[in-house]
Amino acid sequence: MSEVENTSFEECLQRLMTSLEASLYEEATSQLSDLHAAEIARLLESVPPKDRIKLWLNIDSATQGDILKDLSEDVLSQLLNEMSVDGIVKATEGLDMDDLADIVPELPESALHNLLLTLDHKHRDHLKQVLSYPEDSAGGLMNIDIITVRDDVNVRTVIRYLRLLKEMPIDTDQVFVVDRTYKYIGSIHISTLLTNEAEQNIKPLINKEHKPILASTPESDVASLFEQRDLISAPVVDDNNQLIGRITIDDVVDVIRDEAEHSVMSMAGLDEEDDVFAPVIESTKSRSIWLGVNLITVFVAVFFIGLFEATLQEKIALAVLMPVVASMGGIAGTQTLILVTRGIATGRVTTSNLKVLMNKEVAIGLLNGMLWSVVIGLATYLWFSDLILSLVIATAIVVNLIFAAFSGAFLPSLLIKFKIDPALAGGVILTTITDVIGFVAFLGLASLVV
Amino acid sequence: MSEVENTSFEECLQRLMTSLEASLYEEATSQLSDLHAAEIARLLESVPPKDRIKLWLNIDSATQGDILKDLSEDVLSQLLNEMSVDGIVKATEGLDMDDLADIVPELPESALHNLLLTLDHKHRDHLKQVLSYPEDSAGGLMNIDIITVRDDVNVRTVIRYLRLLKEMPIDTDQVFVVDRTYKYIGSIHISTLLTNEAEQNIKPLINKEHKPILASTPESDVASLFEQRDLISAPVVDDNNQLIGRITIDDVVDVIRDEAEHSVMSMAGLDEEDDVFAPVIESTKSRSIWLGVNLITVFVAVFFIGLFEATLQEKIALAVLMPVVASMGGIAGTQTLILVTRGIATGRVTTSNLKVLMNKEVAIGLLNGMLWSVVIGLATYLWFSDLILSLVIATAIVVNLIFAAFSGAFLPSLLIKFKIDPALAGGVILTTITDVIGFVAFLGLASLVV
Repeated sequence: MSEVENTSFEECLQRLMTSLEASLYEEATSQLSDLHAAEIARLLESVPPKDRIKLWLNIDSATQGDILKDLSEDVLSQLLNEMSVDGIVKATEGLDMDDLADIVPELPESALHNLLLTLDHKHRDHLKQVLSYPEDSAGGLMNIDIITVRDDVNVRTVIRYLRLLKEMPIDTDQVFVVDRTYKYIGSIHISTLLTNEAEQNIKPLINKEHKPILASTPESDVASLFEQRDLISAPVVDDNNQLIGRITIDDVVDVIRDEAEHSVMSMAGLDEEDDVFAPVIESTKSRSIWLGVNLITVFVAVFFIGLFEATLQEKIALAVLMPVVASMGGIAGTQTLILVTRGIATGRVTTSNLKVLMNKEVAIGLLNGMLWSVVIGLATYLWFSDLILSLVIATAIVVNLIFAAFSGAFLPSLLIKFKIDPALAGGVILTTITDVIGFVAFLGLASLVV
Repeated sequence: MSEVENTSFEECLQRLMTSLEASLYEEATSQLSDLHAAEIARLLESVPPKDRIKLWLNIDSATQGDILKDLSEDVLSQLLNEMSVDGIVKATEGLDMDDLADIVPELPESALHNLLLTLDHKHRDHLKQVLSYPEDSAGGLMNIDIITVRDDVNVRTVIRYLRLLKEMPIDTDQVFVVDRTYKYIGSIHISTLLTNEAEQNIKPLINKEHKPILASTPESDVASLFEQRDLISAPVVDDNNQLIGRITIDDVVDVIRDEAEHSVMSMAGLDEEDDVFAPVIESTKSRSIWLGVNLITVFVAVFFIGLFEATLQEKIALAVLMPVVASMGGIAGTQTLILVTRGIATGRVTTSNLKVLMNKEVAIGLLNGMLWSVVIGLATYLWFSDLILSLVIATAIVVNLIFAAFSGAFLPSLLIKFKIDPALAGGVILTTITDVIGFVAFLGLASLVV
């Protein structure tokens, strides 16, 4: 850990790329040896797939295991495919159940079978339990390395028990109190054990303020909870209130980071789990889908232009200026769209305050429409010395900005109702709307007065 | 804490909005009373400013303090402006130094003066120290509630000392070991204290593996460190290696969330600290700047259309189809732009692998250009039965998609060199480039052959 972390990462990558470009694979591998697994994971994601595989096969099994849990899906699946079944079993031996459960979906069938055979009965049951919940739920996120105590003992007994364990699982900030049927009662922060006298009975020390998390809770709700309550770990129970695991902050940080990456990447139809250095053909395929969707929407928009061919023929300045109307509507609408989409995602915007927000956004659209219609009208007059054209474009701007605000505010919750991710589809649909309204308002008005 | 957290937040907001719309302010305030401070903060951010102030003034000082640290800048500053100096002093009394330091920049001058007077000498010095570092550095993020021990004692002594403290600061997962000049030596995880025998000398238990964080480290680097090492807390030292504080995971989670919000919001020129329900005039002003920037860029683009008025006059279908070329380039370029911008932000893309990535992106641009030029050429032929027009648009698509990939890959690092945030300016500049190249390629080619 050092204050020059990022610079040194850049230097590491620089040196690694130099070695790889010179095909010095042994030297490259040795450069990785002193690094933290998370850093090696990041370096592997930062080099082209061919070099990545060469590096990977030179890394020892124990380190491979630690690296696996930090890789994005795409790269993870690529590297697992290059490994022997034995290699996979060896590498995944020491992993936590939740990390193992994340890797399982990417495993080849044969490797999964052999892996299950290496686990003892108890661990196999635990893995099956974690896998029985969706990957993006509290159950899929939880780990099973919990420390439990009964409520009829004193501080000394608990500490003696902990000393017997020799060490505690990472991120253990609390031990959980359960009854004899393993039903959750509450938790005791380990600092409480240190600051209380040895003879103190633990009953009054038990924290019962917070309810445990149900295994079926979606991971985004788990993340909100951790953020709001500043938690380090939290107990997870099944439908019978039986303690089955705990979620730790490190996994929640990954959820938060992934959610954030998702909302940025999906704006361009990208997947946050994709390999940045995926092969050209693969990337071309995945990108082309988004281009195809966009092509359909842009053909919808230009179809409306086609309706006004005669008007355009009469006044070619309309053709020159029409992108201005469409573009201003698109920008204004996107501002509202992103504001509302993020507001919904962070819970600040719900059906109960959407109407207030929509009124506000439409008012902003009206005001900005009036402001910029004057500027654009003047600019048009200076360019084409055509008063009617200037008035037409000014009016079209106001109309489009009002509709843009309305659509931007309305669209996210409409898409959510149809189970469509607004971060993914919102932008494309919105700009189609603002393009069409912009073209129709501008050219339609012009056709009436030209 | 419950599994229906989000639903219940929505219900809370629903009930609150109903009370507020009926002007039942006392009822509304009482609805807040049982909630966690973080939830009240979120509710306050979710109601219009006028109602927010009325609710705020009914909340007791202690709760106000806890809420203040969870508010976004814009809302924080609004509420502080409504409070009396006494009220502010009372509300901020119990806050941690790092939280207090976050609030200070938003405080009215007179309140800051009185606040400093209420602090004792030691706390005033601490606050000044935290304030002496930039808000977005490790120093600005740190808290001073550290527990330190010397290295010549045994486990029993440390535990006895901790018992004397009665309780430990929140998120205390380790105590720090310093020498007699307060220079940092290492840390001991508190679980280590619980799992070792009382007579054990602490020296061999000291973890010296990780270097402490320098106070001047940028907060984004701090966040990467926490993520990579799965930390709960980390020590902060000044330039002389003297321990001055610690950073805890809860503040790091806020950094990660803010960074993520920033990268989404700035794509539409929005500020993540802005109040969603800011007054219409204020929002209109802040949004209009972005619209103005866009207007300039779109006028640059249409200026190039204007150069081809004669060509357009000759074949009006060009006017109808030109948005297709511009739009496809914009979408393809944005895909590359977002991929590279996020890659740089997460450290996966640096100068050493940018060239490899750029080659890959240009190859994708070429392939997707060829693919979609065939589709668009055919569609054009079906619509206008004009072979030359079809060939012209197909060629323009290929040209624009190649340039789009090149610009999208090149732009982020160029902007960073000029200290411009690529998440903010990248999209606007890129679409200007793809618009201009799209229009010039399409209309220019057409002018040669029509």
